[in-house]
Amino acid sequence: MESIQVFAPASVANVGPGYDTFGFAIEQLGDVITLTKRNDHKLKVLKAEGADLPTDPKNNVATVAIQSLLDYLESDQGMDVHIKKIFKPGSGLGSSASSASGAVFAANHLLGNPLKLEKLLDFALEGEALASKSYHADNVAPSLLGGFQVVRSYEPLELFRIPTPAALRVLIIFPDVEIKTSEAKGLIPKELSVKDAREQWGNVGALIHAMHSEDYSLLSHAVRDRIAEPVRKQLIPEYGKVKQTTLDFGAVGFNISGSGPSMFAFFKSSEAAKACMVKIEKMYQKVNLPVMLHLTKINPNGCQIL
Amino acid sequence: MESIQVFAPASVANVGPGYDTFGFAIEQLGDVITLTKRNDHKLKVLKAEGADLPTDPKNNVATVAIQSLLDYLESDQGMDVHIKKIFKPGSGLGSSASSASGAVFAANHLLGNPLKLEKLLDFALEGEALASKSYHADNVAPSLLGGFQVVRSYEPLELFRIPTPAALRVLIIFPDVEIKTSEAKGLIPKELSVKDAREQWGNVGALIHAMHSEDYSLLSHAVRDRIAEPVRKQLIPEYGKVKQTTLDFGAVGFNISGSGPSMFAFFKSSEAAKACMVKIEKMYQKVNLPVMLHLTKINPNGCQIL
Repeated sequence: MESIQVFAPASVANVGPGYDTFGFAIEQLGDVITLTKRNDHKLKVLKAEGADLPTDPKNNVATVAIQSLLDYLESDQGMDVHIKKIFKPGSGLGSSASSASGAVFAANHLLGNPLKLEKLLDFALEGEALASKSYHADNVAPSLLGGFQVVRSYEPLELFRIPTPAALRVLIIFPDVEIKTSEAKGLIPKELSVKDAREQWGNVGALIHAMHSEDYSLLSHAVRDRIAEPVRKQLIPEYGKVKQTTLDFGAVGFNISGSGPSMFAFFKSSEAAKACMVKIEKMYQKVNLPVMLHLTKINPNGCQIL
Repeated sequence: MESIQVFAPASVANVGPGYDTFGFAIEQLGDVITLTKRNDHKLKVLKAEGADLPTDPKNNVATVAIQSLLDYLESDQGMDVHIKKIFKPGSGLGSSASSASGAVFAANHLLGNPLKLEKLLDFALEGEALASKSYHADNVAPSLLGGFQVVRSYEPLELFRIPTPAALRVLIIFPDVEIKTSEAKGLIPKELSVKDAREQWGNVGALIHAMHSEDYSLLSHAVRDRIAEPVRKQLIPEYGKVKQTTLDFGAVGFNISGSGPSMFAFFKSSEAAKACMVKIEKMYQKVNLPVMLHLTKINPNGCQIL
C-alpha cells in the first residue's frame, strides 16, 4: 500500500455532566486525511484545506501524532500528509482530535497494521495534546473508536463504550465565533463543593443508565452540568435563547459541545429537530451571525478507510 | 386490618464512588416492625429488641416517620410500634433507614394503602433525618424499594434503579466497633478538586455500565472512592488487611459500607466469598475483635409484609 485516505469523525465531548469524561462521534463532519509514502524519511504536510493549519510537522497535530507512532514502532517511514477539514477548528467539535485520530489510524494502515486500534489512542492523544495543551481522551476516543465513549480513568487511561438508542438524533448548532479550548479551560473552577460534585455524578450515572435503557425522560433530566456550562455559556451568543428553543421543540437534553461555541441537542426524532432548526436559523439571522446547523446521529464508527 | 408485621432490609450505601448517591438492599439483615392499631390517637413504642432505641415517639426514627405520614394524610390513627433489629445500629448498614422505611411501609398498609410505594420515600426520609441529621436517600430508597438505587438529584428528589448481575454475591464484614454517622460525616471534605471529582464520576459511570453489562472486570476497577474511603478507613480496624484479603480471594470490588465500620466485597461466586470469610474471621480473632460476616445477594425486594 502506497497511499491511503481516511475519514475521522468530529465529536461532541462533555455531553452535559461528563466533563472530560463523555464523548461521542457524529456523522458527516470530520477530517479527510490522505497519506502517501515518501522515499525519504520526512513527514511533510502537503496541503491543508478548510482551515489555516500549521504546515511545520512539529506544530501540526496530524504529523505530531504520526511521529509519536513512528517513534514507538522505531520506523522512519516518510509520509506526505494531506488534510481536508469538513468543519472549522475552534468550533468545539474536537477538530484537533479528528486530525490526530485520522492521522494515526491512516499511518498504522499504511504501515501494514502493526498495532491494534485501541493501542493507537496513545499516539492520537500525543497529537491532540499539542493543540489543547492537555490530554483529552473524551474527543480522541470517539473520533478513533466511534460511538459513545466514557473515560473511567486518565491514569492509567481506561475507557468503555456505552450503547445508545438507535432513534436518538443530535442537532449540532455552531454559531460562527471562535472559542479557543485553552481560553475556555481557564474559566473552569479548580475546586468543586462535594454537594455539587455529588449532583454531577448523579447525572453522570443517570445519563449512562438512560442510554442503556432508552429512558428519554431520565435522559432529559440527566444532561446537566455544574462545571463548564455555568462559566462557558457567557462566551456563546444567544445561548439561553437557543437552549430554551430546543427544549420547547421537545429536545431531551441540551448543552455545550466541548469547549463551545457549538451546542448540541438530543431529539427523539428528526421531525422535531428539523422544525427546531428553522426557528434557530431565524434567531441568528436577527443578530446577523452565521450559524451552521447539522442534524446527525451518534456515529457508531470511528475512523474509516475511504 | 388491625395489625401488620413487615421486614425492612438493611442496605449498603456509597458502594465506592457513589457517595450519597448509590445504595442497595441486602438479604436477611434488617428490621422487623410490627404495628397494631390503638383506639386512642397515640403513637407508642411498645418494645425495641436488639438495640437500645429511644422510646419517646418524638425521638424514635420509626414513630417520627409514621407521624410525618399521618400528618400528610391528616390522620390521627394511633399505633403501637414494636421494633426488632436484626443488626446493630451504628454498623454502617442503614439501621435508621430500615426502621424509617419499615415503619412508613407498615403504617401505609395498616391505613389501607392510601399512598403509592414511591410516595412513602418522603416520610421515611423524615424519620431517617432524625438519626443522621441530614437526608439520606441512598439508604432509605433501597430499604423501601429494593434493588440497587441511584439518586440522580436531591432537590427535587429523583431516583432510578439499575439492574445487577444475578450471580453477584456480597460479603458484609462488620467488625464490632461503633461509628456514629454524624462523626463520620464530619471527616468528609467540603471541597474536591475538579480532577478528583472527574475521576470519581468516571467510576460512577463505570459502575453503572458494569452492572448493566455484567462486566466484572470493569466493576473491579470502578469500585473506588476519593471522598469517604481516604478519611474514614482510619476508623475501621484492620481496614487495609481486610481489603487486600478480599482482593486476594478474587473480590471484584471492596469498600466501606455507608459510614462504616461495615465493609462490603463483591464476589462472582459464593465459593470464593466463603473461603475469604474463613481468612477474615481468623484475622480478627488475632486482634481479639468480634466480627460479623454475612454472605448475601443484592436484594431485589424492599419492605415486605411477613
